[in-house]
Amino acid sequence: MKFHIMTLFPEMVEQGLRTSIIGRAEQKGLLSIQAVNIRDYAFNKHQSVDDYPYGGGAGMLMQAEPVYQCYKAVCQETKEGLEGKKPRLVYLSPQGRTFNQNIAEEFAQEEELILLCGHYEGIDERVLEEIVTDYVSIGDYVLTGGELAAMVMVDAIARLVPGVLHNDVSAEFESFQDHLLEYPQYSRPEIWHDKQVPPILLSGHHANIEKWRREQSIIRTARNRPDLLEKAELTEKEQKFLEEYRKNNLQS
Amino acid sequence: MKFHIMTLFPEMVEQGLRTSIIGRAEQKGLLSIQAVNIRDYAFNKHQSVDDYPYGGGAGMLMQAEPVYQCYKAVCQETKEGLEGKKPRLVYLSPQGRTFNQNIAEEFAQEEELILLCGHYEGIDERVLEEIVTDYVSIGDYVLTGGELAAMVMVDAIARLVPGVLHNDVSAEFESFQDHLLEYPQYSRPEIWHDKQVPPILLSGHHANIEKWRREQSIIRTARNRPDLLEKAELTEKEQKFLEEYRKNNLQS
Repeated sequence: MKFHIMTLFPEMVEQGLRTSIIGRAEQKGLLSIQAVNIRDYAFNKHQSVDDYPYGGGAGMLMQAEPVYQCYKAVCQETKEGLEGKKPRLVYLSPQGRTFNQNIAEEFAQEEELILLCGHYEGIDERVLEEIVTDYVSIGDYVLTGGELAAMVMVDAIARLVPGVLHNDVSAEFESFQDHLLEYPQYSRPEIWHDKQVPPILLSGHHANIEKWRREQSIIRTARNRPDLLEKAELTEKEQKFLEEYRKNNLQS
Repeated sequence: MKFHIMTLFPEMVEQGLRTSIIGRAEQKGLLSIQAVNIRDYAFNKHQSVDDYPYGGGAGMLMQAEPVYQCYKAVCQETKEGLEGKKPRLVYLSPQGRTFNQNIAEEFAQEEELILLCGHYEGIDERVLEEIVTDYVSIGDYVLTGGELAAMVMVDAIARLVPGVLHNDVSAEFESFQDHLLEYPQYSRPEIWHDKQVPPILLSGHHANIEKWRREQSIIRTARNRPDLLEKAELTEKEQKFLEEYRKNNLQS
């Protein structure tokens, strides 16, 4: 899978993603992450890409033309662009639909993805209308630019690409699996700071361990994210367990 | 404001944050961002910090002791830690409450903040129980580690620290202000790809421009994020405008 990231801060994106698991996957040739500097497509000698917004207001705006020229250059690097089709391009913006694990899975099906990072007060609306296919927000908070948001998206999507994680199983049993949060985990030693690992985890009884973990997931989700729990598919027994837990919790 | 980031990938965090606006604020002495390598506190000669989870399962878990030793060292660098108090420590995890602009504003009041980044399948539950004061998730998706989430939090919080943004006004008029998304923005030239800047923005009539922008914000929020709009405080006139817009939209 190929990621093309249009940004004013290519080093930030590259250095931030080149370490860790994503960097290793790139070395193995499973992924390609290319950051393109929008400033290289400035049409004036000062290489400026921003100007005041019409109608006044604080801050500067990224102008349409450098973004568009950069886009055209990136298109020449994508398969769809070369075929004259419009490639999929995500603009990272609080305006967008909120990114989640389902959207990550959807994007992981693509062979190529272009991500556009805004800076300053945003980008001239007209070029967005022309090139953007998807508006995505990583959450309801404001960042200094789209770079970190793009990196978050690349990370969440790239780890779903087969072979990127050491262990393919890892991507399966985890948070948001079946709309439940992850159960608590313990590693050696058995006793740490007078705290003992829950004995069931040492029992070697796999069915019981799985049942306990699933129940812990249900409890945690009920406590921390009741909104997620509504979407979870619980068995009749688990439903009963949850009701029991809620009853006891109300009493205490 | 001081950020201490406990991580296995200190270079990733430092390089990712040192560019851009946050890096400039650090150079100006407005912020300090210190990444501490948990691996430096491994207690074995191989500097390993992970082990298998009890009860089986995919992947490795970060062990309690290196995280705890790293925490103790970081505490010696914080004012509260030196006073024997428990400093505020955020564990980045899908288990946590979902980060948003209100939480960013709350954290921006702190003088110091410790952020703990997990990796692999997570961290031994017992050390989390002992040191974590806040569990925070940046969104409903899974990342390869907590580093990007910590960087997102630092960026969102740091830009609220007075002096970090060039223009203090910039932090005020923006997305999520009053639960509305931002209006479209335009910069030079007046006509680009046959697209004209909305004439009202060239009128110089500030009250009309402000009214138009506010209406655009309302339309966008209604279209993209109706959940936010419910929390927005609209004037009677704006409420009427929204009803009108909805009526016309249903007809078309």
